[in-house]
Amino acid sequence: MLTTQEANQAEENIRFGRVLLFSEGSERFGGNRTLMRELLGGKGAGLAEMTAAGVNVPPGMTILTSQCREYYKDGGKLPAALLDEAKEQLKRIEERLDRKLGCTQKPLLLSVRSGAKFSMPGMMDTILNLGMNDDTVEAMAVLTGNARFAWDSYRRFIQMYSNVVLDLSKDRFEDILYDKKESLRVTNDTDLTAANLKDLVSEYKAFVKRERKIDFPQNTDDQLKGAIEAVFKSWNNNRAIYYRNLSKIDHNIGTAVTVQAMVFGNFDNDSATGVCFTRNPSTGERVLYGEYLINAQGEDVVAGIRTPEKISDMAKTMPVVYKELEETALRLEKHYKDMQDIEFTIQQGELFLLQTRTGKRTAAAAIKVAVDMAAEGIINKQTALTRVEPVQLNQLLLPSFDPQAKEAARREGRLLATGLNASPGAAIGHIIFEPDEAEKVAVEHSKKVILVRVETCPDDIHGIVPARGVVTSRGGMTSHAAVVARGMGKPCVAGCEDFRVDLDREEVHVKDQVLRKGDVISIDGSTGEIFSGAIATHEPKLSPEFQTLLTWADETRLLRVRTNADTPEDAQRARDFGAEGIGLCRTEHMFMSQDRLPAVQEMIMAGSVTEREHALAKLLPMQREDFIGIFEAMNELPVTIRLLDPPLHEFLPKYEDLIEEVAILKTKGVTGEELRSRELLLDKVHQLKESNPMMGLRGCRLGLMYPEINRMQVQAIFEAAIAVQKKGLTVYPEIMIPLIGHVNELKLARIMLEATAKEVMEREGVTIEYKFGTMIEIPRACVTANEIAEYAEFFSFGTNDLTQMTFGYSRDDAEGKFLQKYLEGITWNNQTTKVLQHNPFEVLDQSGVGKLMKLAVEYGLQTRPDLKLGICGEHGGEPSSIAFAHQLGLSYVSCSPYRVPLARLAAAQATISVEEKDK
Amino acid sequence: MLTTQEANQAEENIRFGRVLLFSEGSERFGGNRTLMRELLGGKGAGLAEMTAAGVNVPPGMTILTSQCREYYKDGGKLPAALLDEAKEQLKRIEERLDRKLGCTQKPLLLSVRSGAKFSMPGMMDTILNLGMNDDTVEAMAVLTGNARFAWDSYRRFIQMYSNVVLDLSKDRFEDILYDKKESLRVTNDTDLTAANLKDLVSEYKAFVKRERKIDFPQNTDDQLKGAIEAVFKSWNNNRAIYYRNLSKIDHNIGTAVTVQAMVFGNFDNDSATGVCFTRNPSTGERVLYGEYLINAQGEDVVAGIRTPEKISDMAKTMPVVYKELEETALRLEKHYKDMQDIEFTIQQGELFLLQTRTGKRTAAAAIKVAVDMAAEGIINKQTALTRVEPVQLNQLLLPSFDPQAKEAARREGRLLATGLNASPGAAIGHIIFEPDEAEKVAVEHSKKVILVRVETCPDDIHGIVPARGVVTSRGGMTSHAAVVARGMGKPCVAGCEDFRVDLDREEVHVKDQVLRKGDVISIDGSTGEIFSGAIATHEPKLSPEFQTLLTWADETRLLRVRTNADTPEDAQRARDFGAEGIGLCRTEHMFMSQDRLPAVQEMIMAGSVTEREHALAKLLPMQREDFIGIFEAMNELPVTIRLLDPPLHEFLPKYEDLIEEVAILKTKGVTGEELRSRELLLDKVHQLKESNPMMGLRGCRLGLMYPEINRMQVQAIFEAAIAVQKKGLTVYPEIMIPLIGHVNELKLARIMLEATAKEVMEREGVTIEYKFGTMIEIPRACVTANEIAEYAEFFSFGTNDLTQMTFGYSRDDAEGKFLQKYLEGITWNNQTTKVLQHNPFEVLDQSGVGKLMKLAVEYGLQTRPDLKLGICGEHGGEPSSIAFAHQLGLSYVSCSPYRVPLARLAAAQATISVEEKDK
Repeated sequence: MLTTQEANQAEENIRFGRVLLFSEGSERFGGNRTLMRELLGGKGAGLAEMTAAGVNVPPGMTILTSQCREYYKDGGKLPAALLDEAKEQLKRIEERLDRKLGCTQKPLLLSVRSGAKFSMPGMMDTILNLGMNDDTVEAMAVLTGNARFAWDSYRRFIQMYSNVVLDLSKDRFEDILYDKKESLRVTNDTDLTAANLKDLVSEYKAFVKRERKIDFPQNTDDQLKGAIEAVFKSWNNNRAIYYRNLSKIDHNIGTAVTVQAMVFGNFDNDSATGVCFTRNPSTGERVLYGEYLINAQGEDVVAGIRTPEKISDMAKTMPVVYKELEETALRLEKHYKDMQDIEFTIQQGELFLLQTRTGKRTAAAAIKVAVDMAAEGIINKQTALTRVEPVQLNQLLLPSFDPQAKEAARREGRLLATGLNASPGAAIGHIIFEPDEAEKVAVEHSKKVILVRVETCPDDIHGIVPARGVVTSRGGMTSHAAVVARGMGKPCVAGCEDFRVDLDREEVHVKDQVLRKGDVISIDGSTGEIFSGAIATHEPKLSPEFQTLLTWADETRLLRVRTNADTPEDAQRARDFGAEGIGLCRTEHMFMSQDRLPAVQEMIMAGSVTEREHALAKLLPMQREDFIGIFEAMNELPVTIRLLDPPLHEFLPKYEDLIEEVAILKTKGVTGEELRSRELLLDKVHQLKESNPMMGLRGCRLGLMYPEINRMQVQAIFEAAIAVQKKGLTVYPEIMIPLIGHVNELKLARIMLEATAKEVMEREGVTIEYKFGTMIEIPRACVTANEIAEYAEFFSFGTNDLTQMTFGYSRDDAEGKFLQKYLEGITWNNQTTKVLQHNPFEVLDQSGVGKLMKLAVEYGLQTRPDLKLGICGEHGGEPSSIAFAHQLGLSYVSCSPYRVPLARLAAAQATISVEEKDK
Repeated sequence: MLTTQEANQAEENIRFGRVLLFSEGSERFGGNRTLMRELLGGKGAGLAEMTAAGVNVPPGMTILTSQCREYYKDGGKLPAALLDEAKEQLKRIEERLDRKLGCTQKPLLLSVRSGAKFSMPGMMDTILNLGMNDDTVEAMAVLTGNARFAWDSYRRFIQMYSNVVLDLSKDRFEDILYDKKESLRVTNDTDLTAANLKDLVSEYKAFVKRERKIDFPQNTDDQLKGAIEAVFKSWNNNRAIYYRNLSKIDHNIGTAVTVQAMVFGNFDNDSATGVCFTRNPSTGERVLYGEYLINAQGEDVVAGIRTPEKISDMAKTMPVVYKELEETALRLEKHYKDMQDIEFTIQQGELFLLQTRTGKRTAAAAIKVAVDMAAEGIINKQTALTRVEPVQLNQLLLPSFDPQAKEAARREGRLLATGLNASPGAAIGHIIFEPDEAEKVAVEHSKKVILVRVETCPDDIHGIVPARGVVTSRGGMTSHAAVVARGMGKPCVAGCEDFRVDLDREEVHVKDQVLRKGDVISIDGSTGEIFSGAIATHEPKLSPEFQTLLTWADETRLLRVRTNADTPEDAQRARDFGAEGIGLCRTEHMFMSQDRLPAVQEMIMAGSVTEREHALAKLLPMQREDFIGIFEAMNELPVTIRLLDPPLHEFLPKYEDLIEEVAILKTKGVTGEELRSRELLLDKVHQLKESNPMMGLRGCRLGLMYPEINRMQVQAIFEAAIAVQKKGLTVYPEIMIPLIGHVNELKLARIMLEATAKEVMEREGVTIEYKFGTMIEIPRACVTANEIAEYAEFFSFGTNDLTQMTFGYSRDDAEGKFLQKYLEGITWNNQTTKVLQHNPFEVLDQSGVGKLMKLAVEYGLQTRPDLKLGICGEHGGEPSSIAFAHQLGLSYVSCSPYRVPLARLAAAQATISVEEKDK
């Protein structure tokens, strides 16, 4: 009996086959692009689609991802029928090209590449020039009239195949090549003659024989089989797994294999290879952007071994082909309705496209491309809105270097060098050379790190992730470092040849200076400049396209976006970023400031209500001033003010410190006032001490035990509101009572505080429009929201605390003690299982916390259909949580000022996504 | 416009009137006893029902409770129509008796009493002999031919009326009486002649005139009006409010007023007054039980001023009336189907019943009465089960004095005196005389207190509640102290005349000894004995009736009852009380014992897994022995064992203590090993320290971070199970993983631990039937119970932690910081509002925590229809929570051993109550 899974697979094999020609893919899937990507992989789907769109693509075939899954299910065995089907399809390619794999007259050479549903650049293996052997190399020499090219291709093939299939280090072959050049006293690979290369092939083959005890495979069918299997295997190499973890890609989807007729960019000087974006991936400007290398193979560009030419130069060197490339780019953009990242090869003046995919881009580019394409009529506004990842926006809102500070640094001679502006942004950090060390220093010691390498490779990812920025001395705009850094929104200066990096000594020689590990540098990824020392940064500005996009977002979204701000400055900044009010103004931050702490402590140490009121009277004018500033900044917008929330001991010295102090004083024999005052303080702190302060006397409980504190705050709020209103501005204060768990808490607090509010308004003869509401941050509040809504005009979900209580996690303790492990996974019997997919304090836990929120919304609206609902936890600035807030039908999210643009966009995307679903 | 409330009231007034005669009450309400109690109060309803049942009741009328509510609603004004209606009804009484209020020929005298829906004995005011004035007193003298009686009644009336209506202290009148007797050189009230009493009346009136500047009211209508209003006012006197708070009676229901023709127990020596229970309220024995006083009024008995005769003596002194009383008792029991507490008066040989109500009784009596009445066919078994308050059972399960220890004390001459065995049970404590001080010492200093008084009165309740027991030197079995103590299940020795209590000096003179405040005594409320010093107590035994009742409970209930037990002794005790398994065996208690702590600490301090396993290996045999003992005690019953739950720092010294120690060592200049070892420990404790340990590394999180700990425990469980099974016993271990919040935690833990279980079973070649399950104590677990149930064969609600997380309360902090205030109420604008009605850690919060439990049950059963469900928090032993567990459809509750009988009964009552509802 077949299992269901096996039966599905069998059916799939019959419906779609195991191997499809590029020319039959698009038709077979009836244009279902998702299914194409799933079964042909991104690369295979792209080639099939390009072929169907009439683009000049070298013919080839794709082995479906289903085969990779079958391969792993069978414990690493190629599916039985796969090779037969592949050979049959290959025959059709051979017929079409009038060449044949392994043929000693007209040999066909193949490239074998990986291609999963999601792009994993450079993570898996590739083999070029497959089909080369001792016989076909001669045939190629004859056929092309270029013996040197033939032998060079053969030696490249041996090197690559041996590395990928036979697991021999690339470096060992490079050493042999180096020795060869040394012995011949030549510098460049191109200086080697056909004869030299033929010798090199012999040496390579001898090396393989020595190391692996086998002759280098001469049978081309065996070569093909080995290559296919190697690609399947590379799906599960360490860097691929790391990348998938990082990019949250399912480990079970497998890769497809594309087998394609080779074309040769290294055929002659009318040949070339290149990669290019249809627009500038850094700025979004509408111009071909990329590099090419004359007389080279694609790997040379990607690996950054030779520094390539800018694509714009091609307009001069190869004007006809360049024009064709431009036309092709346009055709592809119109077809795919997005910016493309293409690989091409020119063989003897003929342009072949090898690959196209959606181009990765910086946030700035994403915005400009989306807005431009909408303006060009390629896409509509809604699609434009979905083209920018909200989290990417963060990088645009990071500070950049202050131009004057940079100018000064330049004058002071601190500009060390300028490389390629590979990924924009400003970063300051300590130079670290080794990825392992970068990870250690950045993660464990929390230091800012700039990773400096000759070039980076996929194995270095763990050092790039935690670094503030990356510098390489080799490689172009499409080198590994550049691509990865752009994807992560991390500043990168690539190919800075003036930076002579000595990895062994951990030094950089630049001009006449030496930089060492730990030295601080500042890099500007937008200009490619590298400075010694730190340079002052300054506030970001939104580009016109960014503004446009956000305006479109505002037209689309239903969720309002507010900000969490405790000062007039933050309030103003958020407003500049488009905040539509304050969703959370935490008053305790006002209590913490150094000039107020004495009055706050006096209030806490008070022995009676009268004493406490005396201390509170000192705080009143200060609080009033705070609120005046905030109300002014938020003229005409609502301001939600949360009354004092934290336990009072947070405003006093730490218990342990006092115990230690008193013990020392006593042991020293100190007596009198000095000891007495510390002991008094210790007593008070002891009295306030709690075993679980998170769940103790705080929030509304504090206000119910000491109503005079909240009354002072409400008095300050209303006096401030009246003062601002008298200036002709409009205020909408919303008083928020935290930590409500039982309706009676809110009922009581509201009665008391509204009395104060009315008292102030009557005294001043001014009426203020205001609301009273509560944070929903206690599970009990969620399940009794129908009762609570009787006294609350708004609910603001405090998702931080709600997550803590719902999970039973104290965030501080959890993150220090077990949460990391829960996220990394727990290993048992060699299998690692993640307990949690996301940190619930970053990404809202929809199935747990979210379920409680859903109940709260339902119950709350039952009682009060016009209840205002919002989120004011950190989740208010996280896209998936914003989407959830939209689904719940909340009125607004509130987030930190810098997250406001992100939230505006994410809210729009949430609206679009729900609309899509409703279609 | 009338408000809804006013409209309802108006309608009620029309339907039922404002004042009803006893003879029309039963008919008017169509026998709806609940409505009768609500509107006529318990006393009024009883009189109406007694009258309807043909019992000889003095005629009278009842002013409905609605009038009291109206009185308060109108700000303390008697409803306009009330007096007119009352006078109209009074006319009918006057006609029937051929007497008339205020008539100078045939005056009618009235009693005016309170009577709320719920009995509040002695809490509100009563006035007797109303209708007496300077004219009617003469008429009474003529009419009865007993001038002394007439003047004595008048002087009593003045005293009572002045006290209740004019707010003059009783004592002032007693002083005048005392002075009078002094001046006449007589001892007893009965020695006063009619002339003496007439003088006294003059003096009383003069005193009233002096103090209140008014003549004592002579108009009998004014007297009646004043009395009615006084009863209404007494609804809100301090002791009534205190009592209602204590008994959880709604403050808004108000009292009725019964106005009844007086009969006179003090008419002559053929007259008497008495109170009696139809069965012994202390033991439940079927015999008239109570007291009477010849030639006295009811107040004399209740107030305990004269020590009355036992009711059984009446069989000799008044045989005819006694027989009538017995017959009446029987009739009332059959009518009301419960034991009655009746007040009667004999006037010139004629028996009148003044009041009947359900008799308060001890737990032992409640059980015996219920079981006996079922045997007698008066009630059925189900009704019998509802007749015992589960919480009352606690008093039966309290230790009693060890008979040998008591005998020894007797031999040592420590028996001080013997009083009335007014409320059973054994108590040991320090003598305290003042209720205020008793409260202070017992509550604030947590000392055991015996309250010793001459007699108690309603004002003393706050001192009785916290006392372990009560001794009075005056008053009988129905005196205030006796009634109240029995109701509370508190030992009481009443009327111990050998105890000469000197309240001023705070001394007791007993025989030739003097006891002083603070001296320890032991009192046996079951025998009336008082011993000096403490006497050893011993384990309680269940009476045969108790066993019978529990057997009936077992036949009725659907919920199973398990116990929380961590030792074989506790397990055995619980089994003796009927536990059907262990619902919670906490393994950390085994870790805490002094002989194991070193190994536990070694385990915690371990630097590596190997070191930790080494320490765990030492704990393994000890844990195994623990489990063997428990499995043996629970042969054939399931045993749920919870794996280690608390944070590890609980097993180490306190952080603050170590800080202090190290600071002192350093300041003293100590170095070397002594300092180093403390510093090492401090480091570890610091490392384990958490800001909110309740929500930190504990429960399953601990087991996932250090799987070896749980593995050792599971190994010990299975090795023990196998060892016990090999002895021929049957074990059903259920492994419970605590604090699950996410399904993956349980999934992982279960995989790891089942591997260990299987390993042990394979090694030993024995199969054990076992289950894996989890505690549901995290809100997230409730809302994702469908996922969790995939890996849990049972859910046990840990309602303690679930309450903490759902409310966001840390129990320790909350109870110390704000919970008390939440329960007492917060005062604002002279109104006190309770935030919480019950302590949620004692009484399960059904609307919050309960709602989450309901979700968990629904979701859990969706996934696993045979999921076993239970409660193992403290709520498992609280009746209302048990009823809730039944409603939820749980399989079992688990509680402490002593609570098992309570839980069996409460579970039966829950079943009956649901069945009733379904009818």
